[in-house]
Amino acid sequence: MLQIILYIAVTLTAVSADYKYETKWCRVPLDHYGFQRNETFQIKYLVNEENWDGSGPIFFYTGNEGQIEVFAKHTGFMWEIAQEFRAKLVFAEHRYYGESMPFGNKSLDNEHIGYLSSAQALADYAVLLNELQGNTIKPRNPVIAFGGSYGGMLAAYFRMKFPHLVSGAIAASAPVHMFTGMAPCGVFNRLVTSSFRTVNNKCSSNIRESWSVIKNYSSTANGSEFLHKTFNLCSPIKNATDLTVLLEFLESMYSTLAMVNYPFASDFLTPLPAEPVRVVCQYLNETLTGDKLLQAIGKVMDIFTNYEKKNTCVDYKKGDDYGNLDAAGWDFQACTEMVMPMCSDGHNDMFEPKPWNYTEFAEACHKKYNVYPRPEMAKLEYGGNRLQAASNIVFSNGLRDPWTGGGILDSLSDTVRAVVIIDAAHHLDLMPSNPSDPEPVKIARNIHKQHIARWIDQFREQMTHTRRT
Amino acid sequence: MLQIILYIAVTLTAVSADYKYETKWCRVPLDHYGFQRNETFQIKYLVNEENWDGSGPIFFYTGNEGQIEVFAKHTGFMWEIAQEFRAKLVFAEHRYYGESMPFGNKSLDNEHIGYLSSAQALADYAVLLNELQGNTIKPRNPVIAFGGSYGGMLAAYFRMKFPHLVSGAIAASAPVHMFTGMAPCGVFNRLVTSSFRTVNNKCSSNIRESWSVIKNYSSTANGSEFLHKTFNLCSPIKNATDLTVLLEFLESMYSTLAMVNYPFASDFLTPLPAEPVRVVCQYLNETLTGDKLLQAIGKVMDIFTNYEKKNTCVDYKKGDDYGNLDAAGWDFQACTEMVMPMCSDGHNDMFEPKPWNYTEFAEACHKKYNVYPRPEMAKLEYGGNRLQAASNIVFSNGLRDPWTGGGILDSLSDTVRAVVIIDAAHHLDLMPSNPSDPEPVKIARNIHKQHIARWIDQFREQMTHTRRT
Repeated sequence: MLQIILYIAVTLTAVSADYKYETKWCRVPLDHYGFQRNETFQIKYLVNEENWDGSGPIFFYTGNEGQIEVFAKHTGFMWEIAQEFRAKLVFAEHRYYGESMPFGNKSLDNEHIGYLSSAQALADYAVLLNELQGNTIKPRNPVIAFGGSYGGMLAAYFRMKFPHLVSGAIAASAPVHMFTGMAPCGVFNRLVTSSFRTVNNKCSSNIRESWSVIKNYSSTANGSEFLHKTFNLCSPIKNATDLTVLLEFLESMYSTLAMVNYPFASDFLTPLPAEPVRVVCQYLNETLTGDKLLQAIGKVMDIFTNYEKKNTCVDYKKGDDYGNLDAAGWDFQACTEMVMPMCSDGHNDMFEPKPWNYTEFAEACHKKYNVYPRPEMAKLEYGGNRLQAASNIVFSNGLRDPWTGGGILDSLSDTVRAVVIIDAAHHLDLMPSNPSDPEPVKIARNIHKQHIARWIDQFREQMTHTRRT
Repeated sequence: MLQIILYIAVTLTAVSADYKYETKWCRVPLDHYGFQRNETFQIKYLVNEENWDGSGPIFFYTGNEGQIEVFAKHTGFMWEIAQEFRAKLVFAEHRYYGESMPFGNKSLDNEHIGYLSSAQALADYAVLLNELQGNTIKPRNPVIAFGGSYGGMLAAYFRMKFPHLVSGAIAASAPVHMFTGMAPCGVFNRLVTSSFRTVNNKCSSNIRESWSVIKNYSSTANGSEFLHKTFNLCSPIKNATDLTVLLEFLESMYSTLAMVNYPFASDFLTPLPAEPVRVVCQYLNETLTGDKLLQAIGKVMDIFTNYEKKNTCVDYKKGDDYGNLDAAGWDFQACTEMVMPMCSDGHNDMFEPKPWNYTEFAEACHKKYNVYPRPEMAKLEYGGNRLQAASNIVFSNGLRDPWTGGGILDSLSDTVRAVVIIDAAHHLDLMPSNPSDPEPVKIARNIHKQHIARWIDQFREQMTHTRRT
């Protein structure tokens, strides 16, 4: 389901940055909040101490829905400021992702998946932090949490829920308001559309047009064959299900292109050229119809799936499981606590009209996982519309990023700050710096550094005060 | 086990205050933090709205280990300030106590008890608060949490973990530092002793002497018969187990007397005269030995168990389950997350030397509940030694209260304040006011009111700011 995926990973190849870390493991309880089941298992974490002098801060990445190595590699900001702060770097893998599987390869089975939740993951991180601090009641190293996207939500929530362990949080592109009743369900798709329309009004209108053309073509044998060939599909569209899967693949594609619309070539979610939305829109910059429109869409698909010329065809059926991010568990989280309503109307956005139907969504979740969603839970647990009650959090959002529709764009208090970055896509501020970075993202990173320095000072003042009393 | 019981309830009779409330129920998930089990059940809560005008604050008592009616009746402070603040009063019952049983009368069976934890209880309270606020994302009523003893810990933790729901907390006599490595294990028993020694040095030394005398007597048939008769026991001491149970009963008795050493007659845990420690010590104010010592202890037991002359004998075997507080679940909490090490040495206290033996304790827990304790968990989850990272909490402690040994006696920050009350026993400041109240407790209640007023103002300022932005 497009509407509940934060990342759509397609392929992942080696990145240029050569970050070194040790891979370690930390034993945690399966259930931190009850005692009906008392097993333990291990979560993975990555550590780099080359700049650390023992007294510096711990920079702690609260891993999101995927292998932690991916986030370690692409969170260049932490690596680049480690020396200046003499920081230890830690990247913690979220339970039920990557290799942090409580029940091995059976972890995602319905009988085992129930201990996958953000609260349990945060408690894992608390146990790990405590271990890193030597299990002392008076930790001497300030801890700064970092995260992007769902990881950004977790960074903010980690500070909110464990203020005694975490001195502050950089929460990049964290859609903490993307819950029921807090943001319009259409905002994400409107922002995706805006990204394409900004390049060229024709680009978004061609895409809006394409849905009916694809459906028309798919309804005849010749048309289907044309689609198969023009889109270079690995398998033909044989029935309505195949068509639905293809349409969802395309929706995901446009969303991903908008999310990772970086000013430089990146392979964060899939290898893509710099400014990929501009690149694909060059095929769609005049009004197209019929065969020509589909050929243009085919070119977009080729860039999206095969920028490195390694694939022979478009395997649209791989869907959410495509790629290396290993985010299969996210679908369960979206079906339980991370319910983020999404819709489109075809007017304010370039997608087919699709209302948010909670009942249908809930029934699909129940059918798949035997659970009903708890759409109120995340708001209740994590601050809802009153995050000003927390402190020492920076919420950064790029105005090119569709997730910004669920982000915090106005500072809520002296210590819960919003940093809005014009010209930045999904957590660009956490990415390795690049000569093509726009000026606003450089400014944002400097603001982050100032906050981090202040939180570290605050921690040290508090510790001095505690020793005195 | 004495060392793990916050309250030792013996009997409870009707109190004089005539507080009126409606009894209501709120449906909550069995497991808030995972999805392996998706049942729900109902917790009980008591409401009084007679002073409430719809816009006033909600005063929320975070129920502890027992029937909520007991705490509602004895938390007179909330009732007495309700009119001034035009507050709604809510007293929420803790899951697995009173009638808030997820599995009916099977709830405390080992196969069902695992969902008894402080974190699940706090999440219950969050759900209830949300319901009381009309399930809105922008609650308009400030909420102040109140609690005494374990309920005081919960009030503080409720503010710490849910700052968006709770504007401040009055945490009375909350032993938040009574965890492993944070307070000396002997402090509780030293403070109990101090309470008796303050009345008369002979009082505590007679009690210290009594243990060996009781053991000597119990080793012969004549001696046992003397104990049976002099202590007015319902059943004789037939073996070593009976003796152990009797000794634990007596230890509990002295601890309870110190805890509820109020300046007025009260039936909070058991009906007792004003200043019960002074009353019982009048039988122990000169050096006693042998028969005379035991006769004096017998008089203490009679006052403790039979102040209202309703019992015909001392049923020492009832142990922890004695009385109406219905705190049977506490033993499980003490065996899992609420591990509070206790010890005595016979020198600094008036008890028999008994070191804290964690291994023995853990094995006993495992044998009884098939779980091992997690002694680090509460510190990690609830702030440990760094509660200054939270805000808007008042920790009040009476210097007559043995639990003060695990309390916070120095203010930690501008908003995490300590209020120390000379001459006050266990959360006297929350009790109904009484002509015999010492001046310091009146001052403490005024300080509480000032904090509450400030927290309410703060909430309203934040809400105004939110509406503006």
